[in-house]
Amino acid sequence: MIRGILFDLAGVLHIGDELCPGAVPALARVRKAGLLVRFVTNTTRKSQAQLIARLHGLGLGIDATEVFTAPLAARAYCRAKNLHPYLLIHPDLKPDLIGLEATTPNSVLVADAGEGFSYANLNTAFRVLMRGGPLIAVAKNRYFRDGEALSLDAGPFVVALEYACEVEAKLIGKPARDFFLTAVQDIGLAAANVVMIGDDVESDVCGAADAGLAGILVGTGKYRDGDETKLPENAHLAADIDQAVEMVLEGKLAHR
Amino acid sequence: MIRGILFDLAGVLHIGDELCPGAVPALARVRKAGLLVRFVTNTTRKSQAQLIARLHGLGLGIDATEVFTAPLAARAYCRAKNLHPYLLIHPDLKPDLIGLEATTPNSVLVADAGEGFSYANLNTAFRVLMRGGPLIAVAKNRYFRDGEALSLDAGPFVVALEYACEVEAKLIGKPARDFFLTAVQDIGLAAANVVMIGDDVESDVCGAADAGLAGILVGTGKYRDGDETKLPENAHLAADIDQAVEMVLEGKLAHR
Repeated sequence: MIRGILFDLAGVLHIGDELCPGAVPALARVRKAGLLVRFVTNTTRKSQAQLIARLHGLGLGIDATEVFTAPLAARAYCRAKNLHPYLLIHPDLKPDLIGLEATTPNSVLVADAGEGFSYANLNTAFRVLMRGGPLIAVAKNRYFRDGEALSLDAGPFVVALEYACEVEAKLIGKPARDFFLTAVQDIGLAAANVVMIGDDVESDVCGAADAGLAGILVGTGKYRDGDETKLPENAHLAADIDQAVEMVLEGKLAHR
Repeated sequence: MIRGILFDLAGVLHIGDELCPGAVPALARVRKAGLLVRFVTNTTRKSQAQLIARLHGLGLGIDATEVFTAPLAARAYCRAKNLHPYLLIHPDLKPDLIGLEATTPNSVLVADAGEGFSYANLNTAFRVLMRGGPLIAVAKNRYFRDGEALSLDAGPFVVALEYACEVEAKLIGKPARDFFLTAVQDIGLAAANVVMIGDDVESDVCGAADAGLAGILVGTGKYRDGDETKLPENAHLAADIDQAVEMVLEGKLAHR
């Protein structure tokens, strides 16, 4: 029985500053039905404050305490491990990671830096890693929908550094198991009673399946024809947020 | 019995505009002993003409016809396959690849672009690949010695694009089997009678072993402690070019 939903944000509820059709009523139905919700995002081109402001501006009625972002999880991880990373991040993300840096970095933290993925910056990161520091990946997404086109996300640059230095990054955001489980724990449900709704078959749906959640892939956002062939068992395809919520409320995911 | 030698250039015979100690006499001994030589390089920050000019300036006595470069092999490959690639390359390499481009690229060719590995350029390449064009990697080296420091080579950016688009690059330069075999064929020897001397355990020595050649890893250039643990069977470690040539001339590689 599904009692809770984790929603991805970009590509599911909104694309940039535009709401996805049906997003507001779908969310209202879910809340009215008494389902518990959290929002889990790998978006790393905005600070938590900017993200919340955008969601507020879109009229989605999402409270800041319901949102779990990969960058804040990364900050918590670095603090716990006493890591002072070289930050390969978007300038807008700096407020969320302030205070982590040190004069001599002992690690590298990669988020979606956009134009910040210059050869010079990547070379700086490479040299820190070659001195033995660990590599922290806030996210490892391949690409995201950027207006009409797809654009490179953080993942390709993470694997570039992994290859250059023959190291494996510690992944913090989706599809890392712990990231889903932190949100699931926060709503006080068992993973088996929660479904993840997202537009990224790997980060959202496969990651959720690994953590024991049900999953629904929506055909909006970065979805591309054929992504559904990568769906794990007990995961489903829906046209959009409206149809995904319909599937949950109709109890179609009940018998797993 | 070893009758021919393939030499890597940078890191073995010279580092930038400096000769490696012992390079000129070592090469003279080899030629005097009647061994056949060729030079195989993945260097992609210079055109063939600039490369030959540098070698001439260093007094290495190398003839242009003895040099096999990965970019020229890539040009031949693209012409044979009717590929008009988007070029992610260093501006100095343009003379070697002129005429390949088209208004609408149908593929991507990656060499060591240095500062040309900007987010914008990588995104352009990514979008060509997402339309279904093949990815051609002139080289896939991890890094190279850049003065006092190590710097990122083409390889990390090739794997970044491979990961983003879920494709596998066609590799042209070392360690591709065909690249070694073209040079071996040119001297008219069997692979088993040729040894490759290089500073890159993977591209030079492991690649040569896959093509059936003997190999010697030198402890100069990009060599790092521990690289010798990756040596394939029948490959050897030498301190430098002088000791490597000594090993060949003493017949130490004869019984494979």
